[in-house]
Amino acid sequence: MATVTENALEKRHQIATQLRRWILQMTTDAGSGHATSSLSAVELMAELFFGAHFRFDVEHPTAPNNDRLIFSKGHASPLYYALWSAAGQVAPDRLENYRQFGSLLEGHPTSRFPFTEAATGSLGQGLSVGVGMALAAKLDQLDYRTFVLLGDSEMSEGSQWEAIQIAAEYQLNNLVGVIDVNRLGQRGETMYGDDLQQYKRRIEAFGWQTVVVRDGHDFTELSEAYHRAAASTNQPTMLIARSVKGKGVSFLEDESGWHGKAIDDAQLETALQELGQPASEVRGELSMPNDRHPLSVLPADAEPIQYPAGDEVATRTAYGDALKRLASQYPEIVALDAEVSNSTRAEFFAESYPDRFFEMFIAEQNMVGAAVGLGQRGKIPFVSTFAAFLTRAFDQIRMARHSEANVKFVGSHCGVSIGPDGPSQMGLEDIAMFRTIQECVVLYPSDAIATQRLVERMANHRGISYLRTTRGKTPVIYDNDERFEIGGSKVLRRSDRDRYTLVAAGITLHEALAAHSILQNEGIAARVIDLYSIKPLDHATIRAAADATEMIFTIEDHVPEGGIGEAVLTSLADHPTPVRSLAVRKRPLSGSSERLLDDQGLSAQKIVAAVKAVADLN
Amino acid sequence: MATVTENALEKRHQIATQLRRWILQMTTDAGSGHATSSLSAVELMAELFFGAHFRFDVEHPTAPNNDRLIFSKGHASPLYYALWSAAGQVAPDRLENYRQFGSLLEGHPTSRFPFTEAATGSLGQGLSVGVGMALAAKLDQLDYRTFVLLGDSEMSEGSQWEAIQIAAEYQLNNLVGVIDVNRLGQRGETMYGDDLQQYKRRIEAFGWQTVVVRDGHDFTELSEAYHRAAASTNQPTMLIARSVKGKGVSFLEDESGWHGKAIDDAQLETALQELGQPASEVRGELSMPNDRHPLSVLPADAEPIQYPAGDEVATRTAYGDALKRLASQYPEIVALDAEVSNSTRAEFFAESYPDRFFEMFIAEQNMVGAAVGLGQRGKIPFVSTFAAFLTRAFDQIRMARHSEANVKFVGSHCGVSIGPDGPSQMGLEDIAMFRTIQECVVLYPSDAIATQRLVERMANHRGISYLRTTRGKTPVIYDNDERFEIGGSKVLRRSDRDRYTLVAAGITLHEALAAHSILQNEGIAARVIDLYSIKPLDHATIRAAADATEMIFTIEDHVPEGGIGEAVLTSLADHPTPVRSLAVRKRPLSGSSERLLDDQGLSAQKIVAAVKAVADLN
Repeated sequence: MATVTENALEKRHQIATQLRRWILQMTTDAGSGHATSSLSAVELMAELFFGAHFRFDVEHPTAPNNDRLIFSKGHASPLYYALWSAAGQVAPDRLENYRQFGSLLEGHPTSRFPFTEAATGSLGQGLSVGVGMALAAKLDQLDYRTFVLLGDSEMSEGSQWEAIQIAAEYQLNNLVGVIDVNRLGQRGETMYGDDLQQYKRRIEAFGWQTVVVRDGHDFTELSEAYHRAAASTNQPTMLIARSVKGKGVSFLEDESGWHGKAIDDAQLETALQELGQPASEVRGELSMPNDRHPLSVLPADAEPIQYPAGDEVATRTAYGDALKRLASQYPEIVALDAEVSNSTRAEFFAESYPDRFFEMFIAEQNMVGAAVGLGQRGKIPFVSTFAAFLTRAFDQIRMARHSEANVKFVGSHCGVSIGPDGPSQMGLEDIAMFRTIQECVVLYPSDAIATQRLVERMANHRGISYLRTTRGKTPVIYDNDERFEIGGSKVLRRSDRDRYTLVAAGITLHEALAAHSILQNEGIAARVIDLYSIKPLDHATIRAAADATEMIFTIEDHVPEGGIGEAVLTSLADHPTPVRSLAVRKRPLSGSSERLLDDQGLSAQKIVAAVKAVADLN
Repeated sequence: MATVTENALEKRHQIATQLRRWILQMTTDAGSGHATSSLSAVELMAELFFGAHFRFDVEHPTAPNNDRLIFSKGHASPLYYALWSAAGQVAPDRLENYRQFGSLLEGHPTSRFPFTEAATGSLGQGLSVGVGMALAAKLDQLDYRTFVLLGDSEMSEGSQWEAIQIAAEYQLNNLVGVIDVNRLGQRGETMYGDDLQQYKRRIEAFGWQTVVVRDGHDFTELSEAYHRAAASTNQPTMLIARSVKGKGVSFLEDESGWHGKAIDDAQLETALQELGQPASEVRGELSMPNDRHPLSVLPADAEPIQYPAGDEVATRTAYGDALKRLASQYPEIVALDAEVSNSTRAEFFAESYPDRFFEMFIAEQNMVGAAVGLGQRGKIPFVSTFAAFLTRAFDQIRMARHSEANVKFVGSHCGVSIGPDGPSQMGLEDIAMFRTIQECVVLYPSDAIATQRLVERMANHRGISYLRTTRGKTPVIYDNDERFEIGGSKVLRRSDRDRYTLVAAGITLHEALAAHSILQNEGIAARVIDLYSIKPLDHATIRAAADATEMIFTIEDHVPEGGIGEAVLTSLADHPTPVRSLAVRKRPLSGSSERLLDDQGLSAQKIVAAVKAVADLN
């Protein structure tokens, strides 16, 4: 183990002083920011960066073996930016723009700052992203390591324990967590204060190597701790370091009431005097990563699966088929599932590509965070569970957008049509949830062929997308060579005499088609649109239907709020058209799929009744 | 400690046989359901109910000292219903209706079944509800105990560890968890299989008493375990019981592939033969609870707080003021906060009523589950954190509706108007999220007086409601005696010449009022509506504005999807009117509140520009 020379120590102390000066200066300039939470972790990060532990080629930031650093305690962003400044990557005068409009140095790190691995600020998420990056390294046999700086307060988030449990399960010895135990949370002392043993006991019980650092400001002790982490052969390592919040400034040290506050100009002057001046131009050197690159895999091609017209195939099954088929063309595709792969059909992929499938057990928050991490390392992660249970990870999904993540979500068992299992298992809010995510694509296929094509689109689309699948079987209604586009739709029934338009997707499309036939027999012509792309939405086709018919009926197995009905209304906001939304408005119960759809007014018969109720008036 | 007599043992075995027969019969009748997951827990629950551990007055189900039982593994509903049948509370022939449309015996328990304490089926939620019920018992000095049946698979949910950590923190010795370690999850073996020590090590590290039950089908061992739980003085207790999935039926025992499946009629016949017939009419007796009742508190009255017109008061501060004031009138009010009470202002209540405030630390999922439990025991829980972080508990909020819970949510720091902290801290999806919850009330006040009145409304309203508060100060614009109703709105500016309507709420209402003045000076008359009640929504006022003006502009510090704009569009769906939605459409950044509102087109100037762009066309 390398011992730290006097000379190196002295330089590290000077860098620490420089970091503290920058942290205080930038937060006082901004008039806000988490200065004290940054000061406590200065040595933890200075030793990591400049003690030859963190290997990063600043000339080639995308080099595959560059180590990864995630600030899970994103509020320590002043330290984060200052650290990269000390590494020569941010001009010190740019630090003045911290928190200013347009600056890349935002209040909490987002992907707009070039070195950000994952946006943080919602606590308890960074470790899951680290798990994903560590899994990617194992998969590609790369020797980079992933470091995650954690706050002590955020250890109370259950998502942390999901990440800790999975990291141990996958023996991620290339993952290192660093808990900055500065004792104080936002509004006072944390649950365990400075009792390091509380953290050690729990984390060891979950199967990690732990290294207790009694003084988180002692470079020598920290250096040894990082070396012990590097030596782990089959366990992730957690450094549990006692630190002092506000360290280095007498009137801030270990004091409550300073969380998220900047000091004023006079206090700054005092603080800078206390800290003293470092030797001018302190810069640190990062050590270089290994330059071995991953073997590139030659993709083989796979023929599309042919589904005979009229066959009954559940779209969740078609998803499993499609993902398995695409796997050979896209070596970057990986799949994660929350212990329900036999229901979501991710198992088809898992059986053929076990090394690229990650069983994440029943822990959806960590599954999503890990998928973000895998995506940031060049994978194309498909994440599946019941649509209802994706709500468990809404905060992680929300944050993924600020990471500009590349993650494909697949929610099965949507709507009341799942039947007897009852409301707890029904995805009834998922369209609304994913629609709120900026630039998120929301897809809802009605048959196996549409599903196969849309899964291809998701694989080719960079960003966040969501596919909603159905539990029960639905007939194949499209030709095998039919094309489906993000933002597209299909007009399945149309005539020059159409009085009404039925807009549906997924399970309700088949009810709408049946309703169309009944209405036709009664002399009422209706247009039927398959709105398989809910976001973005095919405005032109909706608008044409609005112009051509008297009223639009939207039919969806989802609550009315935030669903297909409101998406259509928004599409017509400046082009007013009567719209009637048929959706899940009553309390959902257990029962047969048919009975529940009818109970909610979504069956062919109820659609017909709704249309005729209007037709009779006119 | 009571030893189990031969006679009692024999009767308990007969009850177990009866339970197994019912479990198999009802799932085969239904053609679905989780028979094997129920069979593994038969003795765990039969001993609890009929071994004199569970005290419940069936004549008085609402008796305050009745013990509480929550099936966190809600898929074991066949056992749950059979258990109450064995206790004489469900006629055995009613079990035939299991999973049938309209039956109270749903696939997973909901509040429609009278003995359900909390709807379950989304795993990892029952223990949090139990924490809330145990906290309520401590608060009211009632000696009832809360029991939670847990599955081994669901222990991987982070929410479990949030609940475990808080239960230890509050020394809830009146809370007993029972883990049914049957080794098999839905798609295969769980992370730890039948290694009971894995659970013991983790749970003890988190501060619980653990009792390992080597044979979860042995009444004598179970009886001793429950007695040890009852003897705990300052720790919650977890029974960790090894069991056999499918226990009692040779071809189901410890077999994969039977999860959530019913056996067919022929298999049922074989199984019933194996089990044999119990003595006819097996019924168990529940022991009686203590009949001591809580002291009733005489409410004192508190004068409303007067806010002088023009004063600048943040609505989050008014929330803190209002909750503190109401506390004396409503002894049932309790407050929970996720370690940000100094930001949400729940601290005002905490300082005055420390015994009725629960610091839940940074663990939102458990906070929400615990609030559900407190509400089910007669409390009026107010739950606060940043609006953005309530997304962390969307699944618990969704399930609360199926429990018919009485919980008041308060989300602070909503919208881009929070400023420099950046997007991770901005609640931009919260209106959409709460609107998806059936019957949920969504309120968004714009000043201190409206906030005070709406908090009163929330306290008086039974059900789920959400209050959205703003970080920055806003001027007091209402008189202190102004009335605010759920479902109401305020027309603040109107004339006979109004050409446009500005619909806003919260922070943007003040921008709309400023825009109104500017437009007025330019000769453009506009109506301004404060839509403080987003759900339910004041259709009459919106409709009147639609009739009276050419176009409605909605202005909201929230994404367009699922927000105020779509709520207004839905209100006018059958009464088409041009609506233009001004909302957060660009990527939110850090910066000043004013700059960010302007950047998103929500400032008075941008509202004016949007209106004039339309006016110039006409």
